[in-house]
Amino acid sequence: MSESFQTIQSIGSKALLEKIAGFDSYKNEHVVQSIGDDAAVIREDNGSLTLLTSDTYVEGVDFDPTYTPFHHLGYKIVSAGVSDVYAMNGNPEAMLINLAVPNRMSVQMIEDLYKGINAAGSNHNVEVVGGDLKANHANLVVSISVYGRVSKEKITYRKGAQEGDAICVTGDVGGALAGLRILMREKKYWEEHGDESVQPELGDYQFVVKQQLVPEARRDLIQALEDQKVVPSSMIDVTKGLVSEVSALSDASELGAYIYQAALPIAIETRQVADEMQEDVDRYALFGGEDLELMFTLPEDKVEEFVKHFNDFVVIGRMVPKEEGMKMQTAEGDVVSFDELS
Amino acid sequence: MSESFQTIQSIGSKALLEKIAGFDSYKNEHVVQSIGDDAAVIREDNGSLTLLTSDTYVEGVDFDPTYTPFHHLGYKIVSAGVSDVYAMNGNPEAMLINLAVPNRMSVQMIEDLYKGINAAGSNHNVEVVGGDLKANHANLVVSISVYGRVSKEKITYRKGAQEGDAICVTGDVGGALAGLRILMREKKYWEEHGDESVQPELGDYQFVVKQQLVPEARRDLIQALEDQKVVPSSMIDVTKGLVSEVSALSDASELGAYIYQAALPIAIETRQVADEMQEDVDRYALFGGEDLELMFTLPEDKVEEFVKHFNDFVVIGRMVPKEEGMKMQTAEGDVVSFDELS
Repeated sequence: MSESFQTIQSIGSKALLEKIAGFDSYKNEHVVQSIGDDAAVIREDNGSLTLLTSDTYVEGVDFDPTYTPFHHLGYKIVSAGVSDVYAMNGNPEAMLINLAVPNRMSVQMIEDLYKGINAAGSNHNVEVVGGDLKANHANLVVSISVYGRVSKEKITYRKGAQEGDAICVTGDVGGALAGLRILMREKKYWEEHGDESVQPELGDYQFVVKQQLVPEARRDLIQALEDQKVVPSSMIDVTKGLVSEVSALSDASELGAYIYQAALPIAIETRQVADEMQEDVDRYALFGGEDLELMFTLPEDKVEEFVKHFNDFVVIGRMVPKEEGMKMQTAEGDVVSFDELS
Repeated sequence: MSESFQTIQSIGSKALLEKIAGFDSYKNEHVVQSIGDDAAVIREDNGSLTLLTSDTYVEGVDFDPTYTPFHHLGYKIVSAGVSDVYAMNGNPEAMLINLAVPNRMSVQMIEDLYKGINAAGSNHNVEVVGGDLKANHANLVVSISVYGRVSKEKITYRKGAQEGDAICVTGDVGGALAGLRILMREKKYWEEHGDESVQPELGDYQFVVKQQLVPEARRDLIQALEDQKVVPSSMIDVTKGLVSEVSALSDASELGAYIYQAALPIAIETRQVADEMQEDVDRYALFGGEDLELMFTLPEDKVEEFVKHFNDFVVIGRMVPKEEGMKMQTAEGDVVSFDELS
């Protein structure tokens, strides 16, 4: 290899993607939003908007087949895909599934994968309309692209939050990470004891394991917003953790944020897992991703009205002027910046 | 592994996909055409149609990095993606690129890939609007999804050909396969002689090697059809070879086909390669894929009018009643069925 060989790890995949995004590539006149939000947005002739989003899942990197049933994997990749469409306040309609499959996988395994895909598709009104299946040498690689649409009156970007808006989060967070911790512990146990006939002890932790393996995208929020004719000022789905998502909304909206540790929505089971692992549950909530909850901003008076009709969300803080930066007030009353948290 | 382990090879990926397509999956009311044509078709509120298509390319299966510069690979995957949109008589507008990248690949290689992607994007007015980049263990896997649109007056499916319609093919066919043969021979030479400093002798075969490495999708045909307000009765792109594509149009249109061996459009250079390899050039034309030419059907009187404005195509045969099956008249005047050809 030549002296100029630069590894991707040395600059990081995010930096590489930013470098690539900076290339002088063709700009199509109908593209309203390209890379940089939960989904791309394309303007149709009648003014309605098409949403496109795509993700790849690599065996051994993004999922571990040791504790991931393929039915669950199929369900999860669809949940994550439609969640990106919901995060634009849109409705998913169709998806394309691309598989690169190694020889050691059976017909049954791929059928299981598709059963999960179809189950999630039915729950979210999304049809598999294309894609392909190729052979691979080593591992399973799954890509999914989801198509959806939204009216121009309803579309909600990461940008658009206003100073003073409440920052709201559906459901609870950190559960998916807690589930992963449990599954990893069980895997370690199997590997050390070598007895595959021992069933994992997941009985006490069904909720968090479900959050990890088959998270449900929040279609119910999108429907409630539609029913109540409420359009959030900004929105994002929680896939990288609260700190990351609050930062994304703040950056895109050119504002700061102030959140309250005491307000973080954490399920009791998530707390139990953190206790058992002797870890800080707030870190699960702040940095645990994959929960597929939705974070959105609304003026406080609208929150008061909306909560009468849909109440599976909490207010974790509010948007503040950009100069004030991003901060969290701890349960003890201290104020720490997001930089200190990570 | 259990006794019920059934390998994918034992049934074939095509059969597996058909099995999966037969699952009772959710059907979205806006989906006009799901799996089964060059692209999926979704109806917008104003009646215009959205086109979606997706493909995966696996290193070592679909491309060999030994003789595939990454710039060319990027160009080719975009060409193949937009070709599927052209095959519906549509215009591509946006694409999503998903990469699973092994550690041994450098930043430079991925940048080269994207330079090719952007070059093809510029030629076809298609913008990269999303996708992601993940780590992989072994090999590079690239997925591309292309979004396009077409009016309901212009959309052209595989079905729709009428009895008596002329079967037309743009450009020439078999060139991409000829190019692959040359590249494989050069690779073998390198492997046997172990001297990587020896440059491949591609000088005489630039055209076919270009057809293999950087085929160009036929945007010009789609533009000519638009300019002349001509809508083919059916259309498909040539990616699996003439026999496969004629069969697909015939099956979808519930017709037979009669083609003339003497009419197959074959470039001189493709003939030269076949001669040098001591192989039958007609088999290159009939079974060689990846040329990204377009095959379409039109009534004969419309062909006579259209050729005055766009002449880079030939008539290779015509659609006949279904009962007559699919046949080819050889250069010697014999008539053979497609079944005997393969």
